[in-house]
Amino acid sequence: MWDARRIKHCRVCGSPTHYQVPADDNRERAVCIACGEVHYENPLNVVGTVPVWREQVLLCRRNIEPRYGLWTLPAGFMELGETTEQGAVRETVEEAGARIELQGLFSMINVVRVGQVHLFYRARLEDTRFDPGPETIEAQLFHEHEIPWDQLAFRTVRETLQHFFADRANGSFGLHLGDIT
Amino acid sequence: MWDARRIKHCRVCGSPTHYQVPADDNRERAVCIACGEVHYENPLNVVGTVPVWREQVLLCRRNIEPRYGLWTLPAGFMELGETTEQGAVRETVEEAGARIELQGLFSMINVVRVGQVHLFYRARLEDTRFDPGPETIEAQLFHEHEIPWDQLAFRTVRETLQHFFADRANGSFGLHLGDIT
Repeated sequence: MWDARRIKHCRVCGSPTHYQVPADDNRERAVCIACGEVHYENPLNVVGTVPVWREQVLLCRRNIEPRYGLWTLPAGFMELGETTEQGAVRETVEEAGARIELQGLFSMINVVRVGQVHLFYRARLEDTRFDPGPETIEAQLFHEHEIPWDQLAFRTVRETLQHFFADRANGSFGLHLGDIT
Repeated sequence: MWDARRIKHCRVCGSPTHYQVPADDNRERAVCIACGEVHYENPLNVVGTVPVWREQVLLCRRNIEPRYGLWTLPAGFMELGETTEQGAVRETVEEAGARIELQGLFSMINVVRVGQVHLFYRARLEDTRFDPGPETIEAQLFHEHEIPWDQLAFRTVRETLQHFFADRANGSFGLHLGDIT
């Protein structure tokens, strides 16, 4: 669950906030009791890739919480100053140290419970030299029959991989939209 | 431009923050000088629709800043607790008071300068009774030749409408990905 009512103090003046519905609004926001600043909390995007080398897909084993030690596609929070595509490439570089050529948007999955939208792009690995960053224990290529399905970190990773192998078997890659509520 | 360095105080304890690169990070964040809380700032999603009645598209004239008095597709910030689709429907109800049947995702445009990703879905209007909310001066249906191109509020609205009419002329609606940098 996202952290409800986690804004206790005003980012502008530091005074306490009070959750109330502002005059021109229809839901509760953290409003500063001193300066009146309204603080909005909204869903965030997680951007990543499905990096492919011939018949294999690259997964990263997480060196951080949550889901320490489990396998994931390279992905992370989109940052200010970048596009969704740039963010997906950056996360692949940071987590796997992999060089990729980005391909099409492949999945967009709402994860309502945690206030996130996960976006995965297909990507072609340019070589098989990986240099995992501090958030990754190891980066490894997997054939479909080798995927550690019971050791995947996130449901969006599982669903994206399932769509990927199904589409590959059908010979055509689509865009997959879904919700996890 | 997004508000750089706008977090002056810690949301947890109210103490001042200092922008610095946390130990396990690679970019500056607002870090509380007292409790150490790290405050992340990330792009936000704006979700909306292209509501269609037969040959016409519904536009709303903005009753709020920015771009007061200009025309827009119904859209607004995605909220916690909803999917992108639910947010697009909600904004259409709130801004136009329109009843719609949502169709496919139609455009996703990164607006890097303001830290936003705009997502528009095609939608079929169920009737032509509109009940604009407080953020809208009027809601009106437009044929293609009537679109007030020089009075549109946002570039993502312009680009989405251009794609819509081009696709309609071609007889097939695709998904349009783009960046405004």
